[in-house]
Amino acid sequence: MMFEKHSAEGGGPVNVCGVPFGGGGLVIIAGPCTVESREQLLESASAVKEAGADILRGGAFKPRASPYAFQGLCSEGLALLAEARELTGLPVVTEVLDTRDVAEVAAVADMLQVGSRNMHNTALLKAVGTSGKPVLLKRGMSATLQEYLYAAEYVLNAGAKDMVLCERGIRTFETVTRFTLDLSAVPLLQERTWLPVLVDPSHATGRAALVPAMARAAVACGADGLMMEVHAHPDRALCDGEQSLTPEIFFKTVGELRAVAQALGRSI
Amino acid sequence: MMFEKHSAEGGGPVNVCGVPFGGGGLVIIAGPCTVESREQLLESASAVKEAGADILRGGAFKPRASPYAFQGLCSEGLALLAEARELTGLPVVTEVLDTRDVAEVAAVADMLQVGSRNMHNTALLKAVGTSGKPVLLKRGMSATLQEYLYAAEYVLNAGAKDMVLCERGIRTFETVTRFTLDLSAVPLLQERTWLPVLVDPSHATGRAALVPAMARAAVACGADGLMMEVHAHPDRALCDGEQSLTPEIFFKTVGELRAVAQALGRSI
Amino acid sequence: MMFEKHSAEGGGPVNVCGVPFGGGGLVIIAGPCTVESREQLLESASAVKEAGADILRGGAFKPRASPYAFQGLCSEGLALLAEARELTGLPVVTEVLDTRDVAEVAAVADMLQVGSRNMHNTALLKAVGTSGKPVLLKRGMSATLQEYLYAAEYVLNAGAKDMVLCERGIRTFETVTRFTLDLSAVPLLQERTWLPVLVDPSHATGRAALVPAMARAAVACGADGLMMEVHAHPDRALCDGEQSLTPEIFFKTVGELRAVAQALGRSI
Amino acid sequence: MMFEKHSAEGGGPVNVCGVPFGGGGLVIIAGPCTVESREQLLESASAVKEAGADILRGGAFKPRASPYAFQGLCSEGLALLAEARELTGLPVVTEVLDTRDVAEVAAVADMLQVGSRNMHNTALLKAVGTSGKPVLLKRGMSATLQEYLYAAEYVLNAGAKDMVLCERGIRTFETVTRFTLDLSAVPLLQERTWLPVLVDPSHATGRAALVPAMARAAVACGADGLMMEVHAHPDRALCDGEQSLTPEIFFKTVGELRAVAQALGRSI
Repeated sequence: MMFEKHSAEGGGPVNVCGVPFGGGGLVIIAGPCTVESREQLLESASAVKEAGADILRGGAFKPRASPYAFQGLCSEGLALLAEARELTGLPVVTEVLDTRDVAEVAAVADMLQVGSRNMHNTALLKAVGTSGKPVLLKRGMSATLQEYLYAAEYVLNAGAKDMVLCERGIRTFETVTRFTLDLSAVPLLQERTWLPVLVDPSHATGRAALVPAMARAAVACGADGLMMEVHAHPDRALCDGEQSLTPEIFFKTVGELRAVAQALGRSI
Repeated sequence: MMFEKHSAEGGGPVNVCGVPFGGGGLVIIAGPCTVESREQLLESASAVKEAGADILRGGAFKPRASPYAFQGLCSEGLALLAEARELTGLPVVTEVLDTRDVAEVAAVADMLQVGSRNMHNTALLKAVGTSGKPVLLKRGMSATLQEYLYAAEYVLNAGAKDMVLCERGIRTFETVTRFTLDLSAVPLLQERTWLPVLVDPSHATGRAALVPAMARAAVACGADGLMMEVHAHPDRALCDGEQSLTPEIFFKTVGELRAVAQALGRSI
Repeated sequence: MMFEKHSAEGGGPVNVCGVPFGGGGLVIIAGPCTVESREQLLESASAVKEAGADILRGGAFKPRASPYAFQGLCSEGLALLAEARELTGLPVVTEVLDTRDVAEVAAVADMLQVGSRNMHNTALLKAVGTSGKPVLLKRGMSATLQEYLYAAEYVLNAGAKDMVLCERGIRTFETVTRFTLDLSAVPLLQERTWLPVLVDPSHATGRAALVPAMARAAVACGADGLMMEVHAHPDRALCDGEQSLTPEIFFKTVGELRAVAQALGRSI
Repeated sequence: MMFEKHSAEGGGPVNVCGVPFGGGGLVIIAGPCTVESREQLLESASAVKEAGADILRGGAFKPRASPYAFQGLCSEGLALLAEARELTGLPVVTEVLDTRDVAEVAAVADMLQVGSRNMHNTALLKAVGTSGKPVLLKRGMSATLQEYLYAAEYVLNAGAKDMVLCERGIRTFETVTRFTLDLSAVPLLQERTWLPVLVDPSHATGRAALVPAMARAAVACGADGLMMEVHAHPDRALCDGEQSLTPEIFFKTVGELRAVAQALGRSI
């Protein structure tokens, strides 16, 4: 398998516009769940840049449970992400939902995200793998680690060179949190693959108050990076406001993450 | 919601090439997991026709866990399905995996299937909903019934008129079966929606020996139909042979299903 | 293992005061969740007797989630169960929660129940196994079938001769029902053990409206009997009223169960 | 509820023979899964003492899945634990399985453990609560946090003054690990109760190689302590050897835990 540590193809460093993943450092991806407006995106992007983020996230195409929920600004959202990149200098990662949109998204984004709901969507996995862009593949909400690695193999087999994984919570019987963050996935995936492993505590818990603690735990067990939702005004967010950090809490959290990483001898 | 029992749009009879779903009868969809060859498909198709199937199933595009597993005969498989329809007179249902393939599949199939792994693939839900074809939407392996109904709403909202649901097992901690068949979904979905509800005991259990018992249970709790894998030579199947019934067992099972339905006053 | 079909010890008929389990017939255990009062118990007991129950159930010692919920009438409840038996002629099954209570409960009950929450309580399993009484062992809410059979082995190994199993729902991510009824456990357990297998659709679903459909499904997949909660006045029940059938619905359901069993060639 | 942060009864410091739980420090409980022999226990006890453990663990009564697996040395095991305490000066925690054994175990142990398989065993919860001893209550393998807190309430309501909780993994669909460690339980329980919260990464993962990473994560998200299995010779262990740390790895791990705690401003 190409995902395996000692595969002929694997093992090289993963790089997104100069941001290195997996070399002992800690990559912070942050931004709003959804691109809602120019003002909202630029304000949030500046805030996460100042607070120490390495990459900007933001959804232009949104996979919502209900067809009547806000589905994203789509092409207009992509243009705003490009503007935010210009403003902040941060590379941009955004989700793609449809094989027919891969070219359009790849023309703007620096990294293509395949979300949890599409981890089993093999057509999309192949399409992003041939796009030439780095890929961020989230774990399916009920995918075993074996299935997850097979999904990664679809992307690699299609041609992707730069790719990272992201644990984002699995579905269990517990309902206090939105999902259950399965941090043991981090060392397990690192044991089996050369792919860097991130953690998304925002979607996993669904509650902003739990994000800092779970982000610290992710670093302590060896995660190569974090993906966190940050919104300049979480109470006004169109989507997932209850799991978004304010810029202030995000800034404080990043400091804690650095402290944990340094205590464990990582180069930050 | 358009899926609700008393919605303005809903409630009409669902019809696939003259096969009525949901009017008290029992629709039997059967056939091989995958279209493997002309000989295999035509032999299996004839067998299920003789044994009393109403609709033929068979996968041309296959959603496999590994990229190195057989991915289906694709366009060639569609042509074979058309030939099998001509031979048997049975309408054909087959899965579509990619929004870019919807038109091609819809040009041949009498009913489009969205599989469990794509239930959250909203782009595909919208695309099949606009295809003009009846849709068979399987429950996601870890979808709540609420999420499942929302997925149905995506399809209806896009324009589908004829649509049926299908419980096919959910992911739980139990590993003796491939998934856990959640039969309580049948009365629960029927309580909340006008959409007919089928059950697929083959994928749910992953074991042919359990399929007849679970199929009988499905009829006893009110399912509007069954979807079962039948292969003329399960031991030679390229995919899912261990869960495929032989034509003989299938024939015997259909007889039992009719007996249960009649005992409960259903018109078979 | 003593639970296995061809073990030296196993295979004999299971008998509770003349009620045979597992010989092709259908045993109906019914009654209120909890013994609440003399009037309530005797009224419900008479009703289930008239409607065709074979054994009376009723909890004297109750395993409640909260220490502030009604914990049962305890010894007084046992005395009322004895009175109900005298009135109706029905054998009585009731749950025991504490190894220290086994002798007291065994002095009254015709069959000892170990509930789902105590399936892993090995001390209790051994104690009921040595009591000389038939045992009804419910599946733990998150027990694999392998663990369940091991729990049965504890009881058999301690000396029990008459013992039956009971699937009562497992814990999954779905929250519309209280638990998820895993009916595939019925043929799977019957394949591996000589122990009769019952189904409890009342606790599994937690909703009276689903009980008749799930009870029919249980018979259709081969269950050796049903355990159902019936209360003369569900709206006044101190515990689990929302999942209790009225005597009228229970009567109608028993008729449907017999019809399904007969349609499948079982001797009722 | 007595478990709540601002209950009249709650909030005092928890103390086990001078070891304070929950005041910002980090309590390390370590030792073998099972007391196997005098030599094994004393060797392992000395090793964990030297490596910095605060409390010694070891099972005298064992809750095994199969009745044919080693059930523990029972009374003899308790005597050996007393000897190990004398040798090392470490307080001793051990599990009790049967209400009839509570007095015997409480006569020796400094802290009574109720294991995951008995979290719903309300008779045992009441019995340990009246024993006068501090209680370590593990989370049931499929208990919601709400059910877990109710179980704690049973113990407190029966009279316990000193009590701690312990997350030890929940049952999910993932089978690579024995259970799935739910670390979000740590901040969630700390938010809702005054009870200190430990984490047991050994039982949660079932794999020694994952224990250090998960232990570090537990400290990083705020756990008040760790419970870890350490065996002088894991390859010779009668029970759970594959999840036991060697004394060397344990020593190294404790150092890492202290580094993480200090980096986050905790007083170690």
